[in-house]
Amino acid sequence: MLEEIDKNYKKSSLEQKYNIIKGNRYIMEEAIVPISKALKLPMDEVVDVFVKTCDGVSLYESHAYVEQAKMGCLGRKVDIDLGLCWIADFFGLISKKDADLIRRKVVEDTIIKKRPYKEALEEGRLLTVKILKGEE
Amino acid sequence: MLEEIDKNYKKSSLEQKYNIIKGNRYIMEEAIVPISKALKLPMDEVVDVFVKTCDGVSLYESHAYVEQAKMGCLGRKVDIDLGLCWIADFFGLISKKDADLIRRKVVEDTIIKKRPYKEALEEGRLLTVKILKGEE
Repeated sequence: MLEEIDKNYKKSSLEQKYNIIKGNRYIMEEAIVPISKALKLPMDEVVDVFVKTCDGVSLYESHAYVEQAKMGCLGRKVDIDLGLCWIADFFGLISKKDADLIRRKVVEDTIIKKRPYKEALEEGRLLTVKILKGEE
Repeated sequence: MLEEIDKNYKKSSLEQKYNIIKGNRYIMEEAIVPISKALKLPMDEVVDVFVKTCDGVSLYESHAYVEQAKMGCLGRKVDIDLGLCWIADFFGLISKKDADLIRRKVVEDTIIKKRPYKEALEEGRLLTVKILKGEE
């Protein structure tokens, strides 16, 4: 009897979590879809992993995580696109502080100010060149 | 007189550094060219920055830096291509330790074992999916 209740409870908790995810367009579009694309995994399977790994509370909070994740991942892209990992981290041609500033500016312009990434990146590039030449 | 010697010394030191870089095909191909492409800056100007920023010793040592830089930058690319920044850093669907392992494997397969990046990435993807599903 207790086992049955437990089983039912677990089932309804899982269902609840499915519904939280499936009903949240933001989480679907901004987390499930990109992960599904990166891993070539059907969206349902990605939802499965989320349901099994995260508790209900962290799912409700995932809006905040998504913003953080987007900014963190875009920062890595800026590093590559502007070669910051070369010129700051390894060759020390500009300081890490300057690299952080450039990276943060491009990321914030794109995600918070909603400017096209290409435009924000171009500005970041000009700033990098200026710093590199000692003009800033 | 002393000023003149000093000026000549500086000039010949700069020239020496130019020659170290220009004469080193490895540094040219693996550092100057990618930075020049990322920043849309003529190669000569990138060499200028190196000459002004680095001392002679660090130029001689730059072979080691280039290897480190390549591995570090490729790691960032793996993070993006496999969505590791999402699933490990922000949603905690796999552990950071597992993410490090996957990233390192793809990077080492590509740079040290000289396997095509696409192949190494595909193996990394399969490993990620296995870990994500709790099969590994």
